[in-house]
Amino acid sequence: MEAIGSRRWAIAEGYIPGQSHGPEPAMTSHETACLLNASDQDARVEITIYLSDREPAGPYRVTVPARRTMHLRFNDLEDPEPVPRDTEYASVIEADVPIVVQHTRLDSRQAENALLSTIAYAQG
Amino acid sequence: MEAIGSRRWAIAEGYIPGQSHGPEPAMTSHETACLLNASDQDARVEITIYLSDREPAGPYRVTVPARRTMHLRFNDLEDPEPVPRDTEYASVIEADVPIVVQHTRLDSRQAENALLSTIAYAQG
Amino acid sequence: MEAIGSRRWAIAEGYIPGQSHGPEPAMTSHETACLLNASDQDARVEITIYLSDREPAGPYRVTVPARRTMHLRFNDLEDPEPVPRDTEYASVIEADVPIVVQHTRLDSRQAENALLSTIAYAQG
Amino acid sequence: MEAIGSRRWAIAEGYIPGQSHGPEPAMTSHETACLLNASDQDARVEITIYLSDREPAGPYRVTVPARRTMHLRFNDLEDPEPVPRDTEYASVIEADVPIVVQHTRLDSRQAENALLSTIAYAQG
Repeated sequence: MEAIGSRRWAIAEGYIPGQSHGPEPAMTSHETACLLNASDQDARVEITIYLSDREPAGPYRVTVPARRTMHLRFNDLEDPEPVPRDTEYASVIEADVPIVVQHTRLDSRQAENALLSTIAYAQG
Repeated sequence: MEAIGSRRWAIAEGYIPGQSHGPEPAMTSHETACLLNASDQDARVEITIYLSDREPAGPYRVTVPARRTMHLRFNDLEDPEPVPRDTEYASVIEADVPIVVQHTRLDSRQAENALLSTIAYAQG
Repeated sequence: MEAIGSRRWAIAEGYIPGQSHGPEPAMTSHETACLLNASDQDARVEITIYLSDREPAGPYRVTVPARRTMHLRFNDLEDPEPVPRDTEYASVIEADVPIVVQHTRLDSRQAENALLSTIAYAQG
Repeated sequence: MEAIGSRRWAIAEGYIPGQSHGPEPAMTSHETACLLNASDQDARVEITIYLSDREPAGPYRVTVPARRTMHLRFNDLEDPEPVPRDTEYASVIEADVPIVVQHTRLDSRQAENALLSTIAYAQG
């Protein structure tokens, strides 16, 4: 299939709640970038994390294989440094083939979980 | 009315919770692609499901009649195979006339339901 | 201010829950099209409602004055006919000057309310 | 990094609930414009608030430093006037360098919080 998407995306909202309720890991508060690579080539993806009070962190590197999706939890990013909890951030996601990016959060700080999701911003 | 929309859409986030609370079917956890065909021709729609660990499933085929909307539950897709529960997926939706696609989930795993929705990604 | 927006929008998701919990009218389950007219001319707006099993309803007509916002509840549309409850629909929103449209739902069928929102689809 | 984003954004939905449940300030009902400035120049940002029944308020002015994000709570805007609570509004956000804008609300009027988020509308 011909590739769908863009090589450059941004998510201006980012926040990993430090607390959770409910069974792990499905109900752990988390922040996800859902990445779809519908192309026939593996996508090498670089993520840069922007913060409010210091220089950006990253890049974090992942590979999304051809014709696969990856639901990447920011909680799991460890290299070069973990993404801080209870801290506002934003992200820019760049790939060497077109991909599609959607942003989702499960917030389980209270007894009942809340959800948000939005397509990310695609450049060009 | 002149058609509004695009022939190619992607939803990078997909996840059908395996559990629900509340009366069926309204409160069953579900994942929906809302399809609007505002054109004067029936839209033949093909949906391909991308997974994280194997080749894509589908295509699933539906027809959205002219000047109609269809709120398609991924839960209901059965042919060529059901969409797996508690599994991350993504989808590409292609039509032979312009349509509009919006993605919505009702998550009723806990006692109180949570909702998310976003316009899908339109190619071109 | 120079106008921002588009003259043609679509919302593929639409559903007014027939039940509510909590104080009226803030906590009544409702579906809203938030319309922003940042231009210096009044915007004449026409809304067409698409259904799954019959021809479209409408057009419904509202005017959003220059430099004003209107948060239009689909619940309140009465002429030419009310929007049915517990029924899936979609909408196309057309204006004679550029406007911006965002879609929001408050679902209070259960004790705790759930929210969703997304920017609508802009044609061109 | 080359700048990503647009100089002109709109959020058609705005509403700051007047009541909250839960620990302050994380669980205070709030409305946020998440601003990402991935460029190498500080972004001077002007926000205009549109209302339903009077002329717009503002502009409110903030600066987002180069390579930084700012999660701006509309609750905190005070100059030239506070944003009214329990009142429908909309906003236009303009910057002198490209930025990315996402809109998020935490509604804690009831015991369990609800969330919504969407990418804002980018002009051109």
